Amino acid sequence: MEQLLEAYPVIVEIPIAWGDMDAFQHVNNTVYFKHFESARLAYFEKIGFMGVMADTGIGPILAATRCFFKIPLTYPDRVSVGASVDRIEADRFRMIYGVVSHAHGKLAATGEGTIVTFDYQAGRKMPIPERIENRIRALEATVARSDHG
Amino acid sequence: MEQLLEAYPVIVEIPIAWGDMDAFQHVNNTVYFKHFESARLAYFEKIGFMGVMADTGIGPILAATRCFFKIPLTYPDRVSVGASVDRIEADRFRMIYGVVSHAHGKLAATGEGTIVTFDYQAGRKMPIPERIENRIRALEATVARSDHG
Amino acid sequence: MEQLLEAYPVIVEIPIAWGDMDAFQHVNNTVYFKHFESARLAYFEKIGFMGVMADTGIGPILAATRCFFKIPLTYPDRVSVGASVDRIEADRFRMIYGVVSHAHGKLAATGEGTIVTFDYQAGRKMPIPERIENRIRALEATVARSDHG
Amino acid sequence: MEQLLEAYPVIVEIPIAWGDMDAFQHVNNTVYFKHFESARLAYFEKIGFMGVMADTGIGPILAATRCFFKIPLTYPDRVSVGASVDRIEADRFRMIYGVVSHAHGKLAATGEGTIVTFDYQAGRKMPIPERIENRIRALEATVARSDHG
Repeated sequence: MEQLLEAYPVIVEIPIAWGDMDAFQHVNNTVYFKHFESARLAYFEKIGFMGVMADTGIGPILAATRCFFKIPLTYPDRVSVGASVDRIEADRFRMIYGVVSHAHGKLAATGEGTIVTFDYQAGRKMPIPERIENRIRALEATVARSDHG
Repeated sequence: MEQLLEAYPVIVEIPIAWGDMDAFQHVNNTVYFKHFESARLAYFEKIGFMGVMADTGIGPILAATRCFFKIPLTYPDRVSVGASVDRIEADRFRMIYGVVSHAHGKLAATGEGTIVTFDYQAGRKMPIPERIENRIRALEATVARSDHG
Repeated sequence: MEQLLEAYPVIVEIPIAWGDMDAFQHVNNTVYFKHFESARLAYFEKIGFMGVMADTGIGPILAATRCFFKIPLTYPDRVSVGASVDRIEADRFRMIYGVVSHAHGKLAATGEGTIVTFDYQAGRKMPIPERIENRIRALEATVARSDHG
Repeated sequence: MEQLLEAYPVIVEIPIAWGDMDAFQHVNNTVYFKHFESARLAYFEKIGFMGVMADTGIGPILAATRCFFKIPLTYPDRVSVGASVDRIEADRFRMIYGVVSHAHGKLAATGEGTIVTFDYQAGRKMPIPERIENRIRALEATVARSDHG
C-alpha cells in the first residue's frame, strides 16, 4: 500500500463513514473531493502556507479540480490519500492526488487540482511567494518519483 | 400545505437532492439538521441578528438541537421548512422547526434548537440584546398560534 | 441569465444554503459537484435512464468529473445549473455543466463528467442502449448550440 | 481520554476534516450527527444487526436524535465517539453518544437517538428481535457504568 503512494510526500488516512455512501450504495463522488481537500490542507500546513497567508494576505484559491474514479468505495474501509505538487508556474501550481483503498489494496481514484496564489486584499492573482515555492520544492525532493501519471 | 406551517413566521423552500439520500435510500438524518439551519439563518436575517452581531460582537450559538423523524423523505421531492421562536429566556431562546414534504403533503419531521446569545470577544454568554428580543416578539406576533406541538 | 444556459436542455435551480460555505466563507468546492449531480440526475430522469436501468440492469457510472471555478459563491444566492451531453462514444458519453449565480448574473463555474454505461449484473461496461442514445440526441436537438465552451 | 468514554462499549475514532468547518470556523452541527451515525453503525455491526436485517427483514430506523454541544470543535483535531444503549423498550431502544476532542481532552458533545425496530416488508414497527436484545445486553454488560448522564 505504501508503494502505491510513495511518490506523494503528504499522506492522510481517513476512515470511510457509512454516511459517505449514496443511494447507489457506493461512496458518493463528492466525498472524493473532500478527501482531496483534506490532503491539500495537510500539504498546506506542512509548507506553512497558512502562516504565510496570515503574514502576507496571499493565500491559495482552488481554480479547478478533477477526479478519475477507478474502483467504487464502500463502507467499511479506510483510505490513504496522497498529495504532491508536480508542476509550478508563475502564479499557480498543480497538485495531484491518489486515493488508496485499504480493503482493496489498490488505487481507487486519482485526481488533480490547480491552485492559484491570490492576494485576498487586492483581489488579484499574485506570483507564488518565494518561501512557498522553496518549501514545495524541498518537500517534493523528499520523494522518489519516476512517473506520477 | 401552508396550513401545516401557519404557526411559523419564517419558511424556506428547498429541493431534495438525489445526493441527500444515503445507502438506505432515504434522505439522511444529517440533512434535516442542515435544513433546520437554513430556516434558522433565514430567521436570523429577518430579525437582523447578523447586523447586531457585526455591531456588538454578540451573536448566536447553537447549544442543542433535536429532530423527530415522521415520514422518510426520498428524491424527488421539495420541502418547506418553518422556523419559530416559542420560548425566550434571559440568555437563550428556543426555536422550533417543521419540515413539510410537498410530495406527501404532510409534516415529515419536527425539531427544535436552543440558541444561546454569546459575546464572541469576551467568550461568555450574554443576555439577549433588547433589539433582538423585540424583533423576535414582533415577528412571532404576526402568526396565529394555538399549539406548536 | 437564461441566455447563459441556453445551450443546456436540462436546468435545475437550487438555493445556496448558509451551510454550503466553508471556513473561507465561500461555497465549498464539493458543493459544486453535488449540484452537477443534481443536474445529471434531472437529465437522467428526462431521458428515462432510471427506467431503462430497472428494465435492463444497464445504468450509468460516473468515471471522471471536473470543475472550473470562476466566481466564488456565497450565501445568500441561488444557482441555475445546466446539463448537456456534447459527446457520445460507444460505451460512454460526456456531460457538461454550467452553474449560473443569480446574485452575480454570471457563470460561476463550468464542469464536465464522463458517464460510462455499465451492466451492474455482469459487472462490465456496455454499449449505450439505443433507446438512451436516441433520447439524448432528441433532447440535445431541442437546444440551439454554437459553442459550449 | 479513555476514562471519558469508559461507559461506552463501542468507540470509533474520526479525524476532523478542514471541510467539516462552516463559515463560523467551527465544525458544523450536522457533522456531529454524522459522527453519531458512524458510532451507531459500528454498534450495529458489533451486535450483528445488519445480518439479522438481511435474514428477517427487521432492521433499525432512527426515530429521533439530539445533540448537546459543549465545546466548539475546530480543525485540526481528532474525536473519539462512544455509543451505548441505555434503555430498551418493546419496539425501540435508546442509544447515547459521547464525543471526546483529542485536542481538548474533554467531552465536546453528547447526544442520544431513539432507534425503532421496523419490518421493512410489512411496513410496521416490530418487537426487538430477541437475538438483538440479548447481544445488546451482553455488550453493555462489558462496561462499567454508574451514570451515563
